Amino acid sequence: MAPVKNGRLVFSEIPTGLPEPGKTTVYDESQTIDLESVPLSGGILVKTLVLSIDPYLRGRMRDANIESYAPPFIIGEPLDNYGVGLVLRSEHASFKAGDHVYGTHPFQRYFVAPPADAEKLTVLKNEEGLPWSVYVGVCGMPGQTAHHAWREYSQAKPGETVFITTGAGPVGATVIQIAKQQGLKVIASAGSEEKVAFIKSLGADVAFNYKTERTRDVLARAGPIDIFWDNVGGETLEAAIDASSVGARFIECGAISAYNGEEPYYVKNLMLIMGKQLKISGFIVMWLHEKHLAHFYETFPRLVKEGKINYTEDATRGLERAGHAIVDVQTGRNTGKSVVIVSEE
Amino acid sequence: MAPVKNGRLVFSEIPTGLPEPGKTTVYDESQTIDLESVPLSGGILVKTLVLSIDPYLRGRMRDANIESYAPPFIIGEPLDNYGVGLVLRSEHASFKAGDHVYGTHPFQRYFVAPPADAEKLTVLKNEEGLPWSVYVGVCGMPGQTAHHAWREYSQAKPGETVFITTGAGPVGATVIQIAKQQGLKVIASAGSEEKVAFIKSLGADVAFNYKTERTRDVLARAGPIDIFWDNVGGETLEAAIDASSVGARFIECGAISAYNGEEPYYVKNLMLIMGKQLKISGFIVMWLHEKHLAHFYETFPRLVKEGKINYTEDATRGLERAGHAIVDVQTGRNTGKSVVIVSEE
Repeated sequence: MAPVKNGRLVFSEIPTGLPEPGKTTVYDESQTIDLESVPLSGGILVKTLVLSIDPYLRGRMRDANIESYAPPFIIGEPLDNYGVGLVLRSEHASFKAGDHVYGTHPFQRYFVAPPADAEKLTVLKNEEGLPWSVYVGVCGMPGQTAHHAWREYSQAKPGETVFITTGAGPVGATVIQIAKQQGLKVIASAGSEEKVAFIKSLGADVAFNYKTERTRDVLARAGPIDIFWDNVGGETLEAAIDASSVGARFIECGAISAYNGEEPYYVKNLMLIMGKQLKISGFIVMWLHEKHLAHFYETFPRLVKEGKINYTEDATRGLERAGHAIVDVQTGRNTGKSVVIVSEE
Repeated sequence: MAPVKNGRLVFSEIPTGLPEPGKTTVYDESQTIDLESVPLSGGILVKTLVLSIDPYLRGRMRDANIESYAPPFIIGEPLDNYGVGLVLRSEHASFKAGDHVYGTHPFQRYFVAPPADAEKLTVLKNEEGLPWSVYVGVCGMPGQTAHHAWREYSQAKPGETVFITTGAGPVGATVIQIAKQQGLKVIASAGSEEKVAFIKSLGADVAFNYKTERTRDVLARAGPIDIFWDNVGGETLEAAIDASSVGARFIECGAISAYNGEEPYYVKNLMLIMGKQLKISGFIVMWLHEKHLAHFYETFPRLVKEGKINYTEDATRGLERAGHAIVDVQTGRNTGKSVVIVSEE
């Protein structure tokens, strides 16, 4: 069989504000791969099916000298992120051709994972027969984020009130549904009327558009809050501190408001952390896997199959469009979990 | 017996910056009391022996319309705070003449506590024969603050590193000793060479004067830190976030840097709460009593008696000097736990 084109999305330049497709990221088809003869050296050959597009990818588009929790992308190399792939060939005992794997995938149509990288991939059983894209969404990292951190930090009790930001995002939407199932009152925000309607459909008791209504005003009316799920930071965090009850738990999941180089907003009421006995917990989902991942895979795919956890997906077809999907997520133009369908099986 | 003068320190005016003795607080001897005949109405007559002077008193000198965790002082009325008193007469079954009581005392030489107030006071056994002033210091609220919050939030493991601010204060000094007994490396700061020497004498591994050395530089050298005991807030909190290890615990105990009306410093690196998986807990000591107070009284007086927990005291003699003691605590001029000796027994 002749070599085929092996398209990839390359990190080309560090952006100052929003990433720009064609500049920050460049789609490149100059490389080819011979799927039958490429040497595996004990590893596996994977065809990328689905890639996840997440807010935190912006943070990886930085100067490689700046430390942060996720490694920087390397100029001239393809981006990488959570994805689902199909094993085409295997020289590794843990995998066989036809397996579907979940884990870090380069933004590249085909790739060889050497043994050490292959061993970090999980073989998906998918006994529920869910679409593979679900495994980078509600059954992947965003769902895990919601599930793990809620279990670890929320200390939720029925009748309490939770405020969830970016409620229409894949994490926020999942948290809303978990909270409602546990009998909490849910206040949730999003950035468009369409998203607010989606949040309401998930069962949020109070849903609002933070672009047309002030978070502070809504919380004054619908609060106080016992739990704050923070995907935003900045001024919203300040409003949540002011509106929190004594002993409230703050789950610090993201700060998308500060990702794209605008002058950040500095929180001015941190002194209330004491007076209100707040408990503020930050986390990266990977660090919670050991304690919560087994429970997640035991419960979440089934809940999704049974329609007890719902989700929406915003699928972009074609790796060459992935750069645009990244920008859409940064500006909130996506509706539902953003995924890139690289290949059908 | 003829009535005696019943001196008191009255809250006279809300300060804008530091409180001013004679203006913010006024010592008044116009009232008298007949110790033999004053009606008790089922309560107790108490002679105030010791009053505690604490940083948080400044926060109570505010407009009564502003809510905060501790109630505001009332203009024209005496201040109040933790104290130890001697029961002179009792009409309440829980108290008898000669008992020593701990709890809220007005800044007044003698007072009648009606039954509801009396019932909030604790009779001190003091089997160890410690000076009564110790019961507003290392065996009172400051010691309880150190003890309760360390047990509740520190998750300390031997070999970890803790950074303790205001290490020469009664809370910080106690935390230093607890941490050393549990096998931690202790970094501690204070605002004078004399205080730094005291901190070293308590066993701190790294002690520094934050007025002559930058906290940020010391932490870069002696960190990273696993636990931060924060009595300061602001720029120091920001430096601690930068110097913390993944999974560090922040115990938010005070923010004295923001008490006296200067333009506060706004923390600029809150995003690291996520990336470093920080756990930030604020508290008011009263809320931790239910879980930790019994253990405190079982252990602390004995540890103090045995010299395993040491303390220093800065005693001011005479209620008429209490206003000056308050200012000294706000400006850090006290050396050791500030107490006012109102009366000998």
